[in-house]
Amino acid sequence: MLQIIAGVDIGGTSTKYGLVDNEGNVLYQGSVKTQFPDVNDYIDELENAIREGLESLTDTYELVGVGIGAPNGNYFKGTIEEAPNLPWSGVVPIGKLIEDRFGVPVALTNDANAAAIGEMVYGGAKGMKNFIVITLGTGLGSGLVSNGEMILGHQGFAGELGHQSIKTKGGRQCKCGQKGCLETYVSATGIKRTVYKLLADHHIDSELRNYSFVDLNAKIVADHAKQGDALAIEAFEYTGSILGAKLADAVVYTDPEAIFIMGGLAQAGELLFKPTIKALNDNSMAIFKDKVKVLPSKLDNQTAPIVGAASLIIQKMK
Amino acid sequence: MLQIIAGVDIGGTSTKYGLVDNEGNVLYQGSVKTQFPDVNDYIDELENAIREGLESLTDTYELVGVGIGAPNGNYFKGTIEEAPNLPWSGVVPIGKLIEDRFGVPVALTNDANAAAIGEMVYGGAKGMKNFIVITLGTGLGSGLVSNGEMILGHQGFAGELGHQSIKTKGGRQCKCGQKGCLETYVSATGIKRTVYKLLADHHIDSELRNYSFVDLNAKIVADHAKQGDALAIEAFEYTGSILGAKLADAVVYTDPEAIFIMGGLAQAGELLFKPTIKALNDNSMAIFKDKVKVLPSKLDNQTAPIVGAASLIIQKMK
Repeated sequence: MLQIIAGVDIGGTSTKYGLVDNEGNVLYQGSVKTQFPDVNDYIDELENAIREGLESLTDTYELVGVGIGAPNGNYFKGTIEEAPNLPWSGVVPIGKLIEDRFGVPVALTNDANAAAIGEMVYGGAKGMKNFIVITLGTGLGSGLVSNGEMILGHQGFAGELGHQSIKTKGGRQCKCGQKGCLETYVSATGIKRTVYKLLADHHIDSELRNYSFVDLNAKIVADHAKQGDALAIEAFEYTGSILGAKLADAVVYTDPEAIFIMGGLAQAGELLFKPTIKALNDNSMAIFKDKVKVLPSKLDNQTAPIVGAASLIIQKMK
Repeated sequence: MLQIIAGVDIGGTSTKYGLVDNEGNVLYQGSVKTQFPDVNDYIDELENAIREGLESLTDTYELVGVGIGAPNGNYFKGTIEEAPNLPWSGVVPIGKLIEDRFGVPVALTNDANAAAIGEMVYGGAKGMKNFIVITLGTGLGSGLVSNGEMILGHQGFAGELGHQSIKTKGGRQCKCGQKGCLETYVSATGIKRTVYKLLADHHIDSELRNYSFVDLNAKIVADHAKQGDALAIEAFEYTGSILGAKLADAVVYTDPEAIFIMGGLAQAGELLFKPTIKALNDNSMAIFKDKVKVLPSKLDNQTAPIVGAASLIIQKMK
């Protein structure tokens, strides 16, 4: 029988899942809603959905594990802890609950760590032992790999680079309760805030003056930048200059071979990568200057979270 | 025969060495000058000094290894690379040169990494798997340990936290060529610069107005702070507030159980630790607030670099 892994990406609104073969191909995918007040009802729904997927495959596969990426996921305990955007408060033993249903090994970590392992197992970091993955969605997630191993930390919460501060005092208000966190500048939400800051500060003519804060999104900013809108371009320059400067800090921490950037905002391509790489090298000390590759993820943006979650099982079986 | 390890700490002016037993006791120590234009002359001198030490011991010991801490030391290659304060330019194969003399295993890394391993093998980090060591001397050195392993990085230069920047643009000029590096604020030299900045900006009455920049040092600042000098106290508050804010960043990277601070400036005790711990917790997100211990090193400040270097061999033999 062929082996198959279920990859599960738990988000605030919906949970995406997929069945992934050993080469990282997604043979089946779907989603269920996350917002069940009782976690057991949620597990029921997710179990049924995965079993349906298994039955629909034409070849016969054996489920060998379930990998889960989740906000505030604790790898050591298989728990989700105090996740502000999920309906279950406190410490939720998701790993154990899923294991009880399927009787196969379950591995759980935060979504960005899962993406990093996915990049190592199936993507551009194959064969690399030291790299960083940055995911730019609503927030900024990250996973750090050193000497071939995920940096997990004492509590299992390492790699929260979105919550390093861009100054020692003040800055934009973050949902985490702090101020000046990197993700308030560099993320889909961050670039919106930057556009509004630029519109407030400058007279530059821009189509973006026609969008309300609610209607504006990172893709609209990218589209206008590509059409030559000066303010939209400036917003990407500013975002990249901050990301690059902070990646220069990341480099002095872990001395990576490469930094992979994925997620919605990364789809803007050169608009983001060019100012980021310039700022990284401008801010790097000699031993690191022009030494660290900054690359787009080689995983498909749509299925990366599922594939990343599944890769946790591949990594565990090694 | 009892086992003994030579610990060597290569500094810009002098090289300290010691013979360290398996419990971390320094049975013999001395120093040789570092400034030999020809590295082979330097190795001659160091070899003779270590052999003299071995002969002077009353019991019979077998030398089982030489551990070396050096600026820009590359663990993977056993080399010192482009170290600005050492007399030898380029890439110097110090590890190989020493191995040829003694015929025992040699391990080399940068001085702060050696200090971190020393803390784990002989000091306060015994039994810890995730911690950070910060050394505050002329500069700010650091060693990161994750899951019981030193984070070395792709080139072997990880853990240069002194060269993260405290802002995304500008700041004090650093010897590394960049601006705003943490060590230009938080180090023995950094606090001198802060005193001069405060003297320039404020009218506060202070004994420190009597010192030239050349004569002033961190110990003088600490002594005046202990005597109640308001400006000296403010200099420590400022230094601690920056160190604490950046340690909050360090925490989101590696989620450590503890951060150990050692070196000259750490001898100021509460003057430095109190504002540092306050700023760390003020700047920490909820999952890390009040969770990370900030502790003075348990190694003796004078012999820590030697003991740290020797511990590399203990770690290697495991």
